[in-house]
Amino acid sequence: MPLSDLAALPRGFPDAEFEARLARAQQLMRDTGLAALLLTTEPEVRWFSGFLTQFWQSPTRPWFLVVPARGKPVAVIPGIGAECMGRTWIEDIRTWSSPDPEDDGVSLLAATLREVAGGGPVGLPMGPETHLRMPLSDFERLKSALAGVEFADATGLMRRLRVLKSEAEVAKIRFAAQAASRAFARVPEILSIGMSESACFRAFKIAALESGLDDVAYLVGGAGPGGYGDIISPPSERVLAPGDVLILDIGGVHDGYYCDFDRNFGVGSFADDARRAHDLVWRATEAGLAAARPGATFADLFHAMQGAMSDGGAGDANVGRLGHGLGMQLTEFPSITPWDQTVLEPGIVLTLEPGMAFSPGKMMVHEENIVIREDGAELLTVRAPREMPVIG
Amino acid sequence: MPLSDLAALPRGFPDAEFEARLARAQQLMRDTGLAALLLTTEPEVRWFSGFLTQFWQSPTRPWFLVVPARGKPVAVIPGIGAECMGRTWIEDIRTWSSPDPEDDGVSLLAATLREVAGGGPVGLPMGPETHLRMPLSDFERLKSALAGVEFADATGLMRRLRVLKSEAEVAKIRFAAQAASRAFARVPEILSIGMSESACFRAFKIAALESGLDDVAYLVGGAGPGGYGDIISPPSERVLAPGDVLILDIGGVHDGYYCDFDRNFGVGSFADDARRAHDLVWRATEAGLAAARPGATFADLFHAMQGAMSDGGAGDANVGRLGHGLGMQLTEFPSITPWDQTVLEPGIVLTLEPGMAFSPGKMMVHEENIVIREDGAELLTVRAPREMPVIG
Repeated sequence: MPLSDLAALPRGFPDAEFEARLARAQQLMRDTGLAALLLTTEPEVRWFSGFLTQFWQSPTRPWFLVVPARGKPVAVIPGIGAECMGRTWIEDIRTWSSPDPEDDGVSLLAATLREVAGGGPVGLPMGPETHLRMPLSDFERLKSALAGVEFADATGLMRRLRVLKSEAEVAKIRFAAQAASRAFARVPEILSIGMSESACFRAFKIAALESGLDDVAYLVGGAGPGGYGDIISPPSERVLAPGDVLILDIGGVHDGYYCDFDRNFGVGSFADDARRAHDLVWRATEAGLAAARPGATFADLFHAMQGAMSDGGAGDANVGRLGHGLGMQLTEFPSITPWDQTVLEPGIVLTLEPGMAFSPGKMMVHEENIVIREDGAELLTVRAPREMPVIG
Repeated sequence: MPLSDLAALPRGFPDAEFEARLARAQQLMRDTGLAALLLTTEPEVRWFSGFLTQFWQSPTRPWFLVVPARGKPVAVIPGIGAECMGRTWIEDIRTWSSPDPEDDGVSLLAATLREVAGGGPVGLPMGPETHLRMPLSDFERLKSALAGVEFADATGLMRRLRVLKSEAEVAKIRFAAQAASRAFARVPEILSIGMSESACFRAFKIAALESGLDDVAYLVGGAGPGGYGDIISPPSERVLAPGDVLILDIGGVHDGYYCDFDRNFGVGSFADDARRAHDLVWRATEAGLAAARPGATFADLFHAMQGAMSDGGAGDANVGRLGHGLGMQLTEFPSITPWDQTVLEPGIVLTLEPGMAFSPGKMMVHEENIVIREDGAELLTVRAPREMPVIG
């Protein structure tokens, strides 16, 4: 009974988790000479505070967390979030009534940064995969209010912090991956020939919730005769037909942490070229699993998997990478590319996602989620079968 | 059979919808002297292109749409999106292989803007409720590459465009609101005393999917003895107990469009003060419905609803507003506040969301979704009963 698993895994984290995160951050801040960090996005704020709410989906209000070089983080947030933030380990919570068209938290934030950073450099993620979640004009106002203060790029610091997952984080990702694996195992029973793609997606989402996921925040994929040509589209009203290949790629959430993996299915039967392509990406994943050891780089993982596919005659799927980090977001730093020299360490969680084109307009993409251990890769997903399961 | 409704409502929009949107935009661009718009977020890009994918949840890759003062929009996007964008009405699709650590689309975007805008002013949303979805350092690089080009705030222009919904957009929001209303009607049958909040949330999400929603992108709420004190938190493991008041607030999605409303329930029974509070927010909503006519302002709506609540002795819920626009996002411009002088016009879709505190730590919030017509408000939701339904 999958839902009973929920009782075994506590929600949230003990305060000690956040104390340890903060200590690591403040060490890096001292090393880089930062007086404070200014964070504006959901995962950044949550990593330090534990503040978990879907309310971020409303673009109306900005939310800020200021991390000082010494002492606990300070939340500068709309009043509507005070109660929810008050249940985290954060003690210093400063609020304003938002939205405010004249001053939507900017002067309160400026005063807090002035107090906390004392005119020293303020770190802010500005690099790849980041954005600033506040209006650009308010950021200009903030810079004017803090004239003379240096804003430095904290992308590298945040990457270094977040790339290493604690055991409690790994447990949440594993829970999500195992729940989604149970849902995938039910696909041949819940989907059938003649169902529309959108009905298939809906049925699979229900199965994933029944398997214990909090949310199916992400589900893309599709089916096509002999193969699919696109892996990011929403479902169509086209019905599953014999000879189709179907891919479902789920971002399933447990307690704010994601799994992210896909599974391929034949519909009725499938052609030999699709069978060979699936076998090739499956074997490329095996190569990735074997290569995923401490000391190897993400580039090594790329070459291991791309090498296996090239040996098998695979074409380029134009996806840009063969996997990525995973955690509080569907995709996180680093990327499995020829140029990413990040070294694998115990505690890094990632996806192995070899993809290829096997004929014009037909792709095959496969994906597993792993955590790096001292002795190699630990699978968080239930490993896909080598042969595609068939929807009857 | 709710799912059969799906067949009746086509997915997406005919090209004529996008042609009409573009014509309106280009008229405003001429009025304001903009040579191009640069758009980086999901709803902005989708409004002009129809590009619908959950792939935006990955923060890795930036996506750009350039809208010229004359001619069709130009997509500047990662190669992984070419197939999906190719199915929209957009013809000029320029791609690069992303992620690229050296140049993640910046030079391609700069060249496109130079070609399209010819050195003229480029509009970019910079104001309230907006953000720039690209790395700040890449935006600095873009500005350097386009030295001399003026970047102007296009927040007002985008608001003016998006606030008026077409009948096809209204139909999608109505579909979502009706599906969620069917799910709410099932709550007394699917939830029960002794279920944990998280089990309640999961059961309700499944009911909402079964009712025909594509996604339950947002579900917040909670229960507490005699009332709840927080409306943005995720569910806890606390079980429903007799005397609780439960609120569920759903952002349900159909074909990329949201409904956003809540419903309150008594558990077993409820106390008189909660009954009176519910009656008060219900009557405040009636006052809002009566006031929601073309020519009235959002501030008028605020005063109509706040007046009804103040007359009944309501305390401030500290939520900051009593409703908001609705469409491709869970919350959109405008806000129902004392200071928002936006005038109601036919085609504006919004929520009426009166909220109040009725004793320390106990709130009551109520919400309906409406579209403004020539003769007043048309309900998109099924109107809540005046008395809270009871979960047995």
